[in-house]
Amino acid sequence: MQNDTIAAIATPPGVGGIGVVRVSGTDAFSLVAPLLRRPGKPQEVPPIPPSHMLIYRHIIDPTTQDVLDEVLVAFMHAPHSYTAEDVVEIQGHGGPLILKRILRSVLAQGARMANPGEFTLRAFLNGRMDLAQAEAVMDLIGAQTEAGQRLAMQQLRGRLSEQVQAARQATLGVIARIEASIDFPEDDVPTPQPEELRPLIALAQQQVDLLLAGSEQGRLYRQGLRTAIIGRPNVGKSSLLNALLRTERAIVTPVAGTTRDTVEEIANLRGIPLHLIDTAGITPTTDPVEQIGVERSRAAAESADVVLLVYDGSEPLTEQDRKVSSELQAMGFGEYITLDASANDAYQHRRPVVVVVNKADRPLRLEVAEIGAAWPQATFVKTSTLTGEGLATLEEAIADLVLAGKVLSNESVLVTNVRHQEALRQAAEHLQASVISLEQGLPLDFVSIDLRAAYDALGEVTGETASEDLLDKIFSEFCIGK
Amino acid sequence: MQNDTIAAIATPPGVGGIGVVRVSGTDAFSLVAPLLRRPGKPQEVPPIPPSHMLIYRHIIDPTTQDVLDEVLVAFMHAPHSYTAEDVVEIQGHGGPLILKRILRSVLAQGARMANPGEFTLRAFLNGRMDLAQAEAVMDLIGAQTEAGQRLAMQQLRGRLSEQVQAARQATLGVIARIEASIDFPEDDVPTPQPEELRPLIALAQQQVDLLLAGSEQGRLYRQGLRTAIIGRPNVGKSSLLNALLRTERAIVTPVAGTTRDTVEEIANLRGIPLHLIDTAGITPTTDPVEQIGVERSRAAAESADVVLLVYDGSEPLTEQDRKVSSELQAMGFGEYITLDASANDAYQHRRPVVVVVNKADRPLRLEVAEIGAAWPQATFVKTSTLTGEGLATLEEAIADLVLAGKVLSNESVLVTNVRHQEALRQAAEHLQASVISLEQGLPLDFVSIDLRAAYDALGEVTGETASEDLLDKIFSEFCIGK
Repeated sequence: MQNDTIAAIATPPGVGGIGVVRVSGTDAFSLVAPLLRRPGKPQEVPPIPPSHMLIYRHIIDPTTQDVLDEVLVAFMHAPHSYTAEDVVEIQGHGGPLILKRILRSVLAQGARMANPGEFTLRAFLNGRMDLAQAEAVMDLIGAQTEAGQRLAMQQLRGRLSEQVQAARQATLGVIARIEASIDFPEDDVPTPQPEELRPLIALAQQQVDLLLAGSEQGRLYRQGLRTAIIGRPNVGKSSLLNALLRTERAIVTPVAGTTRDTVEEIANLRGIPLHLIDTAGITPTTDPVEQIGVERSRAAAESADVVLLVYDGSEPLTEQDRKVSSELQAMGFGEYITLDASANDAYQHRRPVVVVVNKADRPLRLEVAEIGAAWPQATFVKTSTLTGEGLATLEEAIADLVLAGKVLSNESVLVTNVRHQEALRQAAEHLQASVISLEQGLPLDFVSIDLRAAYDALGEVTGETASEDLLDKIFSEFCIGK
Repeated sequence: MQNDTIAAIATPPGVGGIGVVRVSGTDAFSLVAPLLRRPGKPQEVPPIPPSHMLIYRHIIDPTTQDVLDEVLVAFMHAPHSYTAEDVVEIQGHGGPLILKRILRSVLAQGARMANPGEFTLRAFLNGRMDLAQAEAVMDLIGAQTEAGQRLAMQQLRGRLSEQVQAARQATLGVIARIEASIDFPEDDVPTPQPEELRPLIALAQQQVDLLLAGSEQGRLYRQGLRTAIIGRPNVGKSSLLNALLRTERAIVTPVAGTTRDTVEEIANLRGIPLHLIDTAGITPTTDPVEQIGVERSRAAAESADVVLLVYDGSEPLTEQDRKVSSELQAMGFGEYITLDASANDAYQHRRPVVVVVNKADRPLRLEVAEIGAAWPQATFVKTSTLTGEGLATLEEAIADLVLAGKVLSNESVLVTNVRHQEALRQAAEHLQASVISLEQGLPLDFVSIDLRAAYDALGEVTGETASEDLLDKIFSEFCIGK
């Protein structure tokens, strides 16, 4: 089935100057060619032009022979195409109805509607890119900041894959060394000694650790940082939201499948998309209608990576302020939480709180010491949305918390994908297990099993060892036409 | 300035597999070429490929030398391009941020951001298409039904222009005949007699009238039919709206510039986009909040081409029913109105009312006779949104009112554009005036002036006599990148 011919509209939905229908597969040329005409010669099917040549044609509805559109069409011979199959790109006017009719004509000729991500899946299956590169395509399209785009582009160009492959080769080197002695015990291959193997494993560990080191930051560049703004009414939460948005705004991309009501406010914090969530309130109430709002706000806060806890600096603490604060502590903010029971300390996740003392343009009447006692680990920032005071400091404070002083250079290769992060963690664990087996003097077969597991885990990143289920899951999140 | 180099994102905004940045103008090649690299050769600017050849390249940010994206790029030599200028199309991954950065790089090289419709304006100014064809491009992109698309495609292929040019040539023939005798009175050119000129003018008149004949219908295929659903609460207006939508739904195109809250409900009525407006109520109220709703509903009804006046057939008439009916009559529905003071009867516009007696699945208790007396010209249809009874009849009734029995064939050339309609009407009036001048025995100079005016009016359709203001107005309604 892999080479059956698929077709889809490849440009975004909506009205534009140009729209593209993409066709790929063994029969792509023979299905599309009969739909094309030279203007003024409605009877004659012109020959297929040379590969990659954009040719002006009319495209017809095969049933009615109606001319549907004027198009530029390019036939691209395998393997010199996106999918490494025969590909036809039909470039028409960018109207949704026209493109739909062109697509319908191609389907009527016997092509099948492409599944989401199926063109890229074929590019992967045909060896044109590995899995990490295929995933980078989607990251590139959905990138919300230039930093996120740069990381996706590096991944697409194979930089991440190179480093993963290096770790994989290092691991394979150890495996080969061990297995040669197991497979050919009578030959001249001496049984390797732990002292000989340990530095070889350490090399692989080092490469995996290097990739894992920046992965929390990398994930933030790709997924963004969920930042909940919390505080009692009238402390200036919404003004703060607007002030943060006003700085440098990120591109807001309505994700396919979400309704239009759920577009989030996204600011750009040193390249990290800052998803700002303005919460109504999180303290319990007896009013059933209000309670729904509270539940929503709590859920938003629960999912936040960082909380901005906002106070009105010009007023003394109120009972409500104290309630908000204790609710937030009950939710476990300000402390480290362990995300994965099997993970070691390095993978604990902190949910930091930044205390914002707002309305700094007025005299301070807030009991800051009391708050300080309640939030000993929190950063404190004084802001005024009126004068702009402290806003830059607030951004620095958030950035410091999550970037931990790391600055993204043009050459940085960061793991941005949670799936890759997971696979790398597994690889790290298996490598660690192999070292322990070695130290405990277990037979080399045991050591080899751990190393194989690490090797396979690394292969999941680049797709050598990815299951069909995993591929389905990954590519189903793509858009149609990619 | 006409050949300065312009650039824009040509694909619709949003997320997709493919996005295109289009560059056109004298310097298009020299501006784009330095941004391209062969993968793996970051230092070397590759030569410009042959015309119309899609080539795989990396595209860089000229300031940072960062690789922004993998692209397929085509250089198209003038005049074999959309604008008839040198054009470069850069096909990248379809993410909004990537395309923005590619565009920014091209602008940094010295290109100018294209105005809305500027590529098509250049195609027109460079003689690649006439004005009616240029306008058809936009109609094609925005077409909401297949019928609308077919008419736009015929206009784009020059069918309308051919017929307008024929009328124009016929008019010019008469002018030439007259002016030859005026300019060279001493030569052998005899002064033409009225009997000789009248059939020549009649020929031109016939051609203009033929175009005008279907223009009201044509306009509907392009603009759609605004249909207000009016009636007191609980007569089943919303169910009727849903039932009409459920039949064959048209493509809903959010028009560029409108907010997403104002997407209308559009059904497909035999190829005519039926804009359905569900009105809250149009009878005055003392409640100030309700009054705002009433004002909006009235405004919607005022702008409607057709009103569906809905009654509950299972209930006797209520005071509110009567109020709604008389309000509608006060607004002039059910009668002919003259749209243009200078127009003759043929251009009067009727605002028809269809009386819908809903809930036909229950016993009839409505005083239909009383309604019949109030709306002697209205069509009556009995419907049930529960059983589906009468819905097809209702659609037929609406279609009959507006299509007046005309069926759109594959070969129909209809004037769909109000601007063209106006120009044709003016041409018809001037031709008529020339006939009158002729009959009144006025000097041939006078006849000639009228004919010239008709000739110029016809030239406005195809753009030969279009002013710069008119061009600005037309092309500013295009989308950017077209």
